[in-house]
Amino acid sequence: MTGHRREGSARTDRAGLHTDLYELRMVDSYLQRGMTAPATFSLFIRPAAARPWYVALGVHRLLELLETFRFGPAEIAYLRTLGFGEPTLSWLAAFEPSGEVWAVPDGAVVLAQEPIVEITAPLPVAQLLETAAINLVQYPTAVATKAARCALAAQGRRLADFGLRRAHGLETGAEAAMAAFVGGGFATSNVEAGRRWKIPVTGTMAHSYIQAFTDERDAFHAFAADHPDHSTLLVDTYDTIKGVSRAVDATAQLRAHGQRLRGVRLDSGDLGELSRQARKLLNDAGLDDTQIIASGGLDEYRIHELVAQAAPIDAFGIGSALTTSSDHPALDIVYKLVAYDQRPVAKFSGIKSTLPGRKQVFRTGDDPTDDVLSVHDADETGQRLLAPVWRDGKPLRAFHLTQTRDHAVSQLDALPTDWQRPPYLDDPPLPRLGTDLEWLNQQVRRAAFE
Amino acid sequence: MTGHRREGSARTDRAGLHTDLYELRMVDSYLQRGMTAPATFSLFIRPAAARPWYVALGVHRLLELLETFRFGPAEIAYLRTLGFGEPTLSWLAAFEPSGEVWAVPDGAVVLAQEPIVEITAPLPVAQLLETAAINLVQYPTAVATKAARCALAAQGRRLADFGLRRAHGLETGAEAAMAAFVGGGFATSNVEAGRRWKIPVTGTMAHSYIQAFTDERDAFHAFAADHPDHSTLLVDTYDTIKGVSRAVDATAQLRAHGQRLRGVRLDSGDLGELSRQARKLLNDAGLDDTQIIASGGLDEYRIHELVAQAAPIDAFGIGSALTTSSDHPALDIVYKLVAYDQRPVAKFSGIKSTLPGRKQVFRTGDDPTDDVLSVHDADETGQRLLAPVWRDGKPLRAFHLTQTRDHAVSQLDALPTDWQRPPYLDDPPLPRLGTDLEWLNQQVRRAAFE
Repeated sequence: MTGHRREGSARTDRAGLHTDLYELRMVDSYLQRGMTAPATFSLFIRPAAARPWYVALGVHRLLELLETFRFGPAEIAYLRTLGFGEPTLSWLAAFEPSGEVWAVPDGAVVLAQEPIVEITAPLPVAQLLETAAINLVQYPTAVATKAARCALAAQGRRLADFGLRRAHGLETGAEAAMAAFVGGGFATSNVEAGRRWKIPVTGTMAHSYIQAFTDERDAFHAFAADHPDHSTLLVDTYDTIKGVSRAVDATAQLRAHGQRLRGVRLDSGDLGELSRQARKLLNDAGLDDTQIIASGGLDEYRIHELVAQAAPIDAFGIGSALTTSSDHPALDIVYKLVAYDQRPVAKFSGIKSTLPGRKQVFRTGDDPTDDVLSVHDADETGQRLLAPVWRDGKPLRAFHLTQTRDHAVSQLDALPTDWQRPPYLDDPPLPRLGTDLEWLNQQVRRAAFE
Repeated sequence: MTGHRREGSARTDRAGLHTDLYELRMVDSYLQRGMTAPATFSLFIRPAAARPWYVALGVHRLLELLETFRFGPAEIAYLRTLGFGEPTLSWLAAFEPSGEVWAVPDGAVVLAQEPIVEITAPLPVAQLLETAAINLVQYPTAVATKAARCALAAQGRRLADFGLRRAHGLETGAEAAMAAFVGGGFATSNVEAGRRWKIPVTGTMAHSYIQAFTDERDAFHAFAADHPDHSTLLVDTYDTIKGVSRAVDATAQLRAHGQRLRGVRLDSGDLGELSRQARKLLNDAGLDDTQIIASGGLDEYRIHELVAQAAPIDAFGIGSALTTSSDHPALDIVYKLVAYDQRPVAKFSGIKSTLPGRKQVFRTGDDPTDDVLSVHDADETGQRLLAPVWRDGKPLRAFHLTQTRDHAVSQLDALPTDWQRPPYLDDPPLPRLGTDLEWLNQQVRRAAFE
């Protein structure tokens, strides 16, 4: 055959079908019944979720989505094949998001149950956005949180995202690099992320480089000669400690001409023990300023162990654990109706229960320790975390990567020490409920079980 | 402010920078040294990985990438800021993939250590493709495998992908739906995936629909009236068993006019016990053909338990566990140099060791039980799984979704029974090594440790 025939329809520039079918079926029913009064949906992480705190991120992605969440001819034609009627199809063809979006700042440290986003809009509009809103906030939040945990465990040692290859898609890899920069100040191996965001990029060699030479020493010498400013050599292709010695030997001549051996990278084995042996070999050769970089199966727990045992590691490269948030690849993040047509509503399904009404988070200090969660217009003290970010087609907030990172870092530094590092708190802390919200919840619960 | 200022550079239509920086640094060095002889890289899942078998998928994505993996002016300008020299930048600006790609069929059931893809090309070309090749194969393979495990556990019950909201990106959700259809014949809630691939779409209502009404019965009646062909009602907003009774009551009048109550969906609680109670209530009302759909925290293990206890569940909706492959969100999939310039190479780093040389997988039956892994031109019996799929810019294989699914299903059905369902095999089975490969491995190992 001569061509590469692709099955399936092409992508379009409208994002409206990135949703679950049930959203459209509900919208169809709402429209048939004229149920278009304002509704508020609250996007938050459920209390049973496994992390004590989260770095909220992705609100800017939601604002971008509002520009492309439309239904063009291809989308409408497909929905017609599913049996939707012409009135609903016409409404969708003319769809533009309306209403308003409130959100915490990107980079805010939040607790479970605290709204990250609240959307108030005509019921069908707010309903339609559910699936994509969750999707776009959950992944950056998961990775920024994972990155923050790693950074706090690393206690000042440098960190790099090595996880593009195991991210769930190429674009997802770039998103991960952005989120890791926000949550933990990570550099990245991801060149596209570096181009887009001006995140520092890092990386020198893989095992294949060593193997392409017949001798490890030749490979080390060649690479250091070709990249005098980036001479971090990967030493574990055959035998890690021999590799360190060979790296020292192979670069001796270059060093005699004023070059440095920037670093050695350990990618397998007992990183604590190997780093100590490597440090000694390097120091014995007078290479006190040659850095040791560790990678291979690292996460916040492993980093914490290595730091606790004072392993002489200067920087960590983190791959799969970071870009897949491997121990919790899915946050239990939801988007729940809390008010419709002025009526506060809730759901009472055991641990999946929700709290009624539009909300506000009141923060009294630099960290979430004493947060109060209450109704939107409650009269509590503290900074109000939720603010309007979009109204009737107009974004009210711009996204600045470095400002977002700085905001995240200042809050993470302020966290109570026992919240920062393993062992993490057993029970996720929750905000205290304000009296107005307590009262409202009792009223709604009583009504539901009447 | 009036506009939504975006930070960062825009996307381009060239994919070349979706790579790790170290690939480019190695390429730079290879080019400086004229190391452009043919190299073979082998993409496979490491033996220590946690699943006994995998449904390989994503080769078609790799072939698509080869059409867009280029470096345009924006990419070159950025790389210049990183310090790459003009000869390398010129080479990249003119870059077009060359060489050849061999691969197993998309949808093939494979074991760890069996190459899914082998790329043979000039060393810098094959090296550059590493990161993206791993990325594009790993995610579809992870999800197709997870889906296959769920489908085998479900023993014929219907399955649907509900996981778009927790997938790592919107496009990733569509990719997951495609992979779940291949591996397990899943329907999907993802409307865009339905449009692109003609995968059956499914979905009716969320809790918000119930809550938007003041009474659950009213909500049930309204939805069933508006969607007579899709009247599957979500019954756990307040109390699951009361919800079932209310669904029966609320639709009585409609049923009197010939409509059916298609189903009830249970989304929380003890799904085994609740399904038995719901079945009884439905049967007592004469609704023997009303189906019970279960969702909420399901995966292959939970499905297996429910099926083993004969829970009367007709269909399962699977969310996060499917689209994040939650227990193993990252497969230990690698892309390793196995030959350069006619010389077979390997890496001997303990469990990260690799086998040298271009390879072939020989399959003697319908399933991988007796697979033999040997060198590319070995004279073993059996079907050769790896075949050329791309050569010098020309794809040699088209992707057909339903054929790929059919191919996967026939192999999964042929798997030994104790490979199909929990408890899965403790140690992942590995292919037997052919005598030619055994010999080659000994030779290369001896040379490495001389």
